[in-house]
Amino acid sequence: MAKTRIGIVGYGNLGRGVETALGQSPDQELVAVFTRRGTGVKIATPGVPVVPLAEVGEWHGQVDVLILCGGSATDLPKQGPELARHFNTVDSFDTHPEIPGYFAAVDDAALAGHHLAIVSVGWDPGLFSLIRNYASAVLPDGDTQTFWGKGVSQGHSDAIRRIPGVADAVQYTVPKAEAVAAARAGKGVGLGTRDKHDRVAYVVAEPGADRAAITQAIKTMPNYFADYDTEVHFISEAELREQHSGMPHGGFVVHAGHTSPGMGQTIEYRLDLDSNPEFTGAVLVAYARAAWRMFQNGERGARSVLDVAPSSLSPKTPAELRSQLL
Amino acid sequence: MAKTRIGIVGYGNLGRGVETALGQSPDQELVAVFTRRGTGVKIATPGVPVVPLAEVGEWHGQVDVLILCGGSATDLPKQGPELARHFNTVDSFDTHPEIPGYFAAVDDAALAGHHLAIVSVGWDPGLFSLIRNYASAVLPDGDTQTFWGKGVSQGHSDAIRRIPGVADAVQYTVPKAEAVAAARAGKGVGLGTRDKHDRVAYVVAEPGADRAAITQAIKTMPNYFADYDTEVHFISEAELREQHSGMPHGGFVVHAGHTSPGMGQTIEYRLDLDSNPEFTGAVLVAYARAAWRMFQNGERGARSVLDVAPSSLSPKTPAELRSQLL
Repeated sequence: MAKTRIGIVGYGNLGRGVETALGQSPDQELVAVFTRRGTGVKIATPGVPVVPLAEVGEWHGQVDVLILCGGSATDLPKQGPELARHFNTVDSFDTHPEIPGYFAAVDDAALAGHHLAIVSVGWDPGLFSLIRNYASAVLPDGDTQTFWGKGVSQGHSDAIRRIPGVADAVQYTVPKAEAVAAARAGKGVGLGTRDKHDRVAYVVAEPGADRAAITQAIKTMPNYFADYDTEVHFISEAELREQHSGMPHGGFVVHAGHTSPGMGQTIEYRLDLDSNPEFTGAVLVAYARAAWRMFQNGERGARSVLDVAPSSLSPKTPAELRSQLL
Repeated sequence: MAKTRIGIVGYGNLGRGVETALGQSPDQELVAVFTRRGTGVKIATPGVPVVPLAEVGEWHGQVDVLILCGGSATDLPKQGPELARHFNTVDSFDTHPEIPGYFAAVDDAALAGHHLAIVSVGWDPGLFSLIRNYASAVLPDGDTQTFWGKGVSQGHSDAIRRIPGVADAVQYTVPKAEAVAAARAGKGVGLGTRDKHDRVAYVVAEPGADRAAITQAIKTMPNYFADYDTEVHFISEAELREQHSGMPHGGFVVHAGHTSPGMGQTIEYRLDLDSNPEFTGAVLVAYARAAWRMFQNGERGARSVLDVAPSSLSPKTPAELRSQLL
């Protein structure tokens, strides 16, 4: 059987994660990587062309599904609808409050171009959304709480790096143990993100920098840290490189509910990830398989993970899945 | 909007669990309970008739979905195909090796009768099957291990009760800590059910019974206990009633994989249930909602949980789900 032809748009951490995941996929092949820079970008897969994104239109009919690996802030709001008009697409748009508007724009474009697009794929939104949906459908008298970490937050790390006197920094988001216990006990209603997480920063100061001033600047930074319990640790550049250079992440969803008075039922789903971009890339690749199947079945327009039948993610046949997984 | 009309077939623990879950469902209503005994059975919902199962045919057109709550050993192999010919059905058939044959029989009947049937719904098979599917589709280079418990095993409790000198007994299945650690570390390949679980029995002996003989009879019982590490505790009837009269259960699925060398990624899904039949009933009720929607959309034949789009389980609209859960 012919392999599904995949194109990657954007070759940052996530694009590389998708490329890695395609190496583990028996029924899909990478046929091109599209980047704004185009030529000059070296990719890991031998023999696959790197193409300027401006020329993507010439690949119509040569790519079955495009996996969009740009950022949610500026890339995807533009690329998502544009590309869904001409290709089947999968993306990881993750700006939560803007998802409904983004979905509508991609839906219009995909319908106009007779394509299928799955938006907001990854682990949150993505796998965590699925778990929240299954849990609240089964236990409607219940409360769902999501925790992130322990993991590296790129945005918060960048914010610290911009403080004068900081040479480098890595920031971890860490769930608060007492909030986790409350969620499991069904007492998490009303907990906000700030009630549920601490922030821990590892900072390399420039020689002679005022460490107290840096600490103060971090702990009082509005939006990022001011409303959190924040720990600041100064370490050496060598320590940062050795112990904090990975991109681990993870988190968990807890749903605590009752089926009748006194009958508590708890669901918990946990991810522990050595590499956030490689895992997110692996989720995108599985949904690219589903996107191609749904397109072949005549489906058109935008979908989210909530609309995709679980079996369509797997390379196995429905009969194999029934005998092996049920 | 008219509520979906639900019929329950079989009124044991699971049938009562479904009835309880329907009490939490805004868009479904119980219209009849069908039992072999028929009249004489008292149910919890006022005003709902109890009907002899032999008369179920007369309810054609008055029930949208039948939820089958009989046992997998003898009830469902016969009832599943028979009822799927005349009604949309959802059932919890859970004899793992026989699922493919059962699915085929129900599929034939449902197609012949132009109905939709979802088979093997619950938490295992069911929610755990979904998790195994998502995990192995996303992390194909990985291994899935399922653990059950701590929870009451009805079959094993019954087996102990049949031993001479035993007045009553409750048996718990308990995951072995070292096997759990191995699974999380990705070293669970090859572990069998017996390697992963201990068995703990609480036994009420008859006055004057030979406790050593009972212990010996339990620990050496073929299939049930002989190959497990089994603990036997003798307790009083009062203790059994006070501390072991519930039907708690639960378990977890661990999938440990790699996206590239050295990049470990772990997924874990855990259920902690005060009442196994009430939770299973709640899962069946959510899938009954999906079954009715799929039937209305023109789908016919048998399906498993792997074929059902997650959003169709929820009473919320796709747009509500996107804005609230993604």
